[in-house]
Amino acid sequence: MPAQKPTIALTLGDPAGIGPELIAKLLNDPANLQQGNIVLIGDPWLWEAGQKAAGVAVATQAIASLADARGAAGDKPLFVAVDSVAPGQVRQGQAAASGGASVLKILNLCMDAVMAGQIDAICFAPLNKHAMKQSGMKFEDELHHFANYLKVDTYFCEFNTLDGLWTSRVSSHVPLKDATSLLSKERIEDASRLIYDSLKAAGIAQPRVAVSALNPHGGDGGSCGREEIDIIEPAVRSLQQQGYPVEGPFPADTIFIKARDGKYDAIVTMYHDQGQIAIKLLGFEKGVTVQGGLPIPITTPAHGTAYDIAGKNLANVNAMRNAYLIACRMGEAYRKRWGES
Amino acid sequence: MPAQKPTIALTLGDPAGIGPELIAKLLNDPANLQQGNIVLIGDPWLWEAGQKAAGVAVATQAIASLADARGAAGDKPLFVAVDSVAPGQVRQGQAAASGGASVLKILNLCMDAVMAGQIDAICFAPLNKHAMKQSGMKFEDELHHFANYLKVDTYFCEFNTLDGLWTSRVSSHVPLKDATSLLSKERIEDASRLIYDSLKAAGIAQPRVAVSALNPHGGDGGSCGREEIDIIEPAVRSLQQQGYPVEGPFPADTIFIKARDGKYDAIVTMYHDQGQIAIKLLGFEKGVTVQGGLPIPITTPAHGTAYDIAGKNLANVNAMRNAYLIACRMGEAYRKRWGES
Repeated sequence: MPAQKPTIALTLGDPAGIGPELIAKLLNDPANLQQGNIVLIGDPWLWEAGQKAAGVAVATQAIASLADARGAAGDKPLFVAVDSVAPGQVRQGQAAASGGASVLKILNLCMDAVMAGQIDAICFAPLNKHAMKQSGMKFEDELHHFANYLKVDTYFCEFNTLDGLWTSRVSSHVPLKDATSLLSKERIEDASRLIYDSLKAAGIAQPRVAVSALNPHGGDGGSCGREEIDIIEPAVRSLQQQGYPVEGPFPADTIFIKARDGKYDAIVTMYHDQGQIAIKLLGFEKGVTVQGGLPIPITTPAHGTAYDIAGKNLANVNAMRNAYLIACRMGEAYRKRWGES
Repeated sequence: MPAQKPTIALTLGDPAGIGPELIAKLLNDPANLQQGNIVLIGDPWLWEAGQKAAGVAVATQAIASLADARGAAGDKPLFVAVDSVAPGQVRQGQAAASGGASVLKILNLCMDAVMAGQIDAICFAPLNKHAMKQSGMKFEDELHHFANYLKVDTYFCEFNTLDGLWTSRVSSHVPLKDATSLLSKERIEDASRLIYDSLKAAGIAQPRVAVSALNPHGGDGGSCGREEIDIIEPAVRSLQQQGYPVEGPFPADTIFIKARDGKYDAIVTMYHDQGQIAIKLLGFEKGVTVQGGLPIPITTPAHGTAYDIAGKNLANVNAMRNAYLIACRMGEAYRKRWGES
């Protein structure tokens, strides 16, 4: 029976943040171990530190590499030891290139394993983009790194999910001054189709997708910005003609109220904070980020490394658990679609 | 006794929206009449239509002009009839230049009356900026029109308030693409000082003011935008040196959670939707806009004309009532400060 569960790689995230503590809390709950065949990959000293911070001790079964994960599936989480960062290189609560390099090394090992068919999904604890860039990541965020590493040449974007509400966005980790110039009919159509199709794949028979406006009051009839008239409305009309029943554009400061009240399953947002302000207010401690448009399932909590509370046993595991559970569901579907029968 | 209450001018707002219905609901509640000496100014046919939409009949006392409002104060709301728009010029639920012209004419009469010392505050029902621009308003919004009309040459901005939380913003009704270029150390300092001083004037002894960041993740250490480092942080340091105990910048997608949880009395936001998405989610049906930095108190509900439900008796009066009550409190202070003893 255990072999039929999806095999989920977990990582400890940025070594200076709350990730190791979160993973310790996650794996200390037996209910979580039932959902997937877990393989944790990271530095043994850091995993020890995480358990200590959380005040728990979790029994694991050591294996040599991710390649052994399917065969070794049992009752205990599997553990693959790597040497990515030394204790002396980490100051808790502080971003550092050494931490960014650790995150990159371990995530790349996970992606190699997915591509080799050895695992079914990745769920990573919070990382720090700035530290990753300091260590040499050439992209604006981890999603672009994943896409490059996995040679994705079609549209991809982050989905932020909260209970039943998903959001996608047309631009992401870019300065706000660049968000408008990144807006295009094509990108809006791509983001809308991707989230619609992803919701269908996640079991929503008839996804209700709304597209947000960009400007205050949705541009107020063109007197406060023309992007709604020139770009967003044409994109929505085009999508409708293609058979995607999306609606919009709607002013950003009211559409989330309708979504919260259950009128939509997803909102396509025009820039990062437009969706993030809303979704974090609706449930900061529960939100999950899904990396949409990649060939493999990758999830993570929507919150960050929370350096201010790192090591203090104050971190809330809810979002980490939700990220893990979504990875299990998506990994299950991935396994059924692509894996061995 | 009635003469000691502040004299508050109320307007019906855009004739095609929910304003007339809201004013009818407001004045139909005797409790509201106790707070202020109300003088409603508008077109008689529109006031009739508002009462009809709300299913109420409100007795008023006619006076010739706002100049008579103080002397006529009694138990019933006063009513000043004007001829600003004809029934045939209004199609319910549709913005039109005729409606914008009506709003401008009546608000200008109110401002004349405040400057002449005839009334103590203005509370207006929702208007439509696009309609006002179509009718000749040369400014981005009504606040800039007010400031011009009242010859204000110091800093002013809208405050959005919700229960105990106030927000100000560095830019307002401008296209998002222009919001970044409008950011400056001086404007951030102005917006912060204005809201701090306004909260003090409203009775908060030690206002706790937080300044929001502009970019995703607060710029992520400069890798996702430099405005935090180059503009916002220097502004906050300068404010602190001037004795204003403001804090920040904080990432926009988490600061409102802290404010909601009671850690701050006010957030200084960098652009319109940054604050509006949050504050409307926190209580769309209760929010009030206060026009900050003007010589006289002017308030209005934070919501708009709600054309889709105009005339259907579905409009929620809570925000209109809160706007009126804040106008009464501010008008009381204004009267004590500037009025006859």
